[in-house]
Amino acid sequence: MNAIDVIAKKRDRGELTRPEIDLFIHGYAQGEIPDYQAAAWAMAVYLNGMTRQETIDLTMSMATSGEMLDLHDVAPIVVDKHSTGGVGDKTTIAVAPWVAACGLPVGKMSGRGLGFSGGTLDKLEAIPGYETRLDIDRFKTQLAHVGVVVAGQTQQLAPADGKLYALRDVTATVPSLPLIASSVMSKKIAAGADAIVLDVKVGRGAFMKTLKEAEALAQIMVDIGQGVGRRVSAVISDMNQPLGLAVGNALETIEALETLRGNGPEDFFQHCIAVAEQMLLLGGRAPNRQAASVMLHEAMDDGRALSKALEWIAAQGGDVTKLSSKPYGLRSAPVVCALKAPRSGIIASIDAMQVGMVAVDLGAGRHRKGDPIDHAVGIVLHAKVGDRVQAGDLLLEIHAKTEARCARARERLLAAYSWAEQPVEQPPLVYKVIG
Amino acid sequence: MNAIDVIAKKRDRGELTRPEIDLFIHGYAQGEIPDYQAAAWAMAVYLNGMTRQETIDLTMSMATSGEMLDLHDVAPIVVDKHSTGGVGDKTTIAVAPWVAACGLPVGKMSGRGLGFSGGTLDKLEAIPGYETRLDIDRFKTQLAHVGVVVAGQTQQLAPADGKLYALRDVTATVPSLPLIASSVMSKKIAAGADAIVLDVKVGRGAFMKTLKEAEALAQIMVDIGQGVGRRVSAVISDMNQPLGLAVGNALETIEALETLRGNGPEDFFQHCIAVAEQMLLLGGRAPNRQAASVMLHEAMDDGRALSKALEWIAAQGGDVTKLSSKPYGLRSAPVVCALKAPRSGIIASIDAMQVGMVAVDLGAGRHRKGDPIDHAVGIVLHAKVGDRVQAGDLLLEIHAKTEARCARARERLLAAYSWAEQPVEQPPLVYKVIG
Repeated sequence: MNAIDVIAKKRDRGELTRPEIDLFIHGYAQGEIPDYQAAAWAMAVYLNGMTRQETIDLTMSMATSGEMLDLHDVAPIVVDKHSTGGVGDKTTIAVAPWVAACGLPVGKMSGRGLGFSGGTLDKLEAIPGYETRLDIDRFKTQLAHVGVVVAGQTQQLAPADGKLYALRDVTATVPSLPLIASSVMSKKIAAGADAIVLDVKVGRGAFMKTLKEAEALAQIMVDIGQGVGRRVSAVISDMNQPLGLAVGNALETIEALETLRGNGPEDFFQHCIAVAEQMLLLGGRAPNRQAASVMLHEAMDDGRALSKALEWIAAQGGDVTKLSSKPYGLRSAPVVCALKAPRSGIIASIDAMQVGMVAVDLGAGRHRKGDPIDHAVGIVLHAKVGDRVQAGDLLLEIHAKTEARCARARERLLAAYSWAEQPVEQPPLVYKVIG
Repeated sequence: MNAIDVIAKKRDRGELTRPEIDLFIHGYAQGEIPDYQAAAWAMAVYLNGMTRQETIDLTMSMATSGEMLDLHDVAPIVVDKHSTGGVGDKTTIAVAPWVAACGLPVGKMSGRGLGFSGGTLDKLEAIPGYETRLDIDRFKTQLAHVGVVVAGQTQQLAPADGKLYALRDVTATVPSLPLIASSVMSKKIAAGADAIVLDVKVGRGAFMKTLKEAEALAQIMVDIGQGVGRRVSAVISDMNQPLGLAVGNALETIEALETLRGNGPEDFFQHCIAVAEQMLLLGGRAPNRQAASVMLHEAMDDGRALSKALEWIAAQGGDVTKLSSKPYGLRSAPVVCALKAPRSGIIASIDAMQVGMVAVDLGAGRHRKGDPIDHAVGIVLHAKVGDRVQAGDLLLEIHAKTEARCARARERLLAAYSWAEQPVEQPPLVYKVIG
């Protein structure tokens, strides 16, 4: 068996064995197999799929292509969460310290935004001084002493995934279930978490457009994790409209901290509770959802969640003096303009993808990897799906660099709304929990 | 539309337009599109196929990626032939001068052997001095003055095909109907022939294993050629057992010239007549097959075909003093050993692929592009399918470099035979003519 044989076997719908996958994936990570062979293979996987066992083997092959973290010298059990990406998804910034405040260590390696989907590292970097590049020693030390750490992924973890992900991006092989699932899970498994809660987004502002697709992705990721002895569950949550009210890096960081202060938007608050409950359950800190919910409400009400957030951010070099109260001391956009309701009625939908793309064009995100971003710009919604508004009511505020960009964003955002005369049912926040 | 969009469209079973194909193929030829994107695209084409129109567009895009030869200043009509490759296929060496001797110019750019399949250039290079690298001016001059020229393909013709072919070889995307058809036809169309006869081989020693596959390939190649205004027909011929008796470069060249002297094996002689008839018909030199057949027999009987062959070879620098009579003065192998029939019976099959692979191992062919070859070695059959032999009769002779290689080849060749007690029908030489 050589690389061409492995490609041909997948091309012909054969089931690859673990040694065949290792030959290909480790060879690719080590530069022995060139990009063009990996590209042909990725397209064959895209079109012919992979069995459950192949997907598990691919995940473990990518995980073992580099260092495998063991965090058990830091804590008996460490929990991680992962979101498949969406618009306004600042969940990690709230739930990581919140769960840590309940006594469960949270060690998370996070990512950056690309396209319509934001990234937690970009949001945290809106805080002056916040350091995302931690080496493994510092990652562990902070996890041991503070109980929460959110850093960028080190190059040593799952290098095969890093290479393959970059290649898929330029060969039209991104939206493949086994490739997405193995990419997410290889990083999580290599990063050493014992328990992993997956937040699988579904809807217009998510990679998975239908509940069926989202369930399939959630199920295979849970299968992978459980197949290799990790505790995994998946929350399938709505991403038809943006999550919460804020979209944009500093704006979202502020919203996450305000939520820990008890001033967050209801949908975002409830979403955080749902994810954090699963983390406490998987981590063995709570016997059931009710108990977990009580713990979380208490940690918020008595200020421990917020204190833990500030402790964590300070430990990573963030200037917490900028975060003490509203207005926060983060850099703000020079221009803020309003979008007002063009009519009276009930908001039937707010297209999250469209809102996300407008935020990217305002400078909050990236079209291409490595593009610089503007932490200050973004959008703050003032009404959400199901709300009744009068013509002229404030729909949202745009935070932009110039008046011209504000005006352009305003028109495109107006097109993201659809309207109803009759009351509209609010979409559920969580469709299903798997695992 | 960019390269990724073109890949994604083919991935999703869309039909690519000519501008989309040009963007991709010309971009690839010019180095703007990297190998890894072309590899992902090729796998998508392999698995999702191409429509007739896409295949024609791909062919013309590759043909126009470089220079397009116009031979009309040399002759009003020039004919070419192409074989899809097989074992013992020395047809060009006989039919090119034979057809030229009938007054129809033959201008052919030929290829080299790879794997089990031999190449005309390698066979001709068994003649000392024969020059395969002709520039376009010399190609045209010889075509004008001698009426026949067989040279290597210049780098200027269809460079996109050259690049894509090399890439397909290492990405398991070779055996794809639209990719094979467009590769063959782009070179033929760029090389300027008005009429093209395709010799599509079918059977164990061919790329196409079934008549259905061969018909499909023949039909799409005829469609392509006719779609762009060339006269094209395809002869679907047998390649279950080797063609003729000789396999190996010098041995095949000698067999081709002996055939023009009237001493060729019957199957190879009839095969040459079938192909040459189509060339004369397409080229407008004969009104029907019967007339073409008469012309060809006359040209052989009166020695014009042989004279034209020697004139052509001399014009390309070949030492024709080595080709005057048997034994020819070409380099011969140091060891010749016999394989005798292990039993009495009727030969039911001789696996052409196996014979071809043994010839490669003897040194007559290449495992990898660029490998050196030994022109002297090879195999000469003494009996073919349908023949009745007695135990101990000579089945074949092996021409090898050493006794050890001879012995190894003998065992493997024995395994290429199957036997029958009852008379076996000889396979037809030609299954069908399309176009």
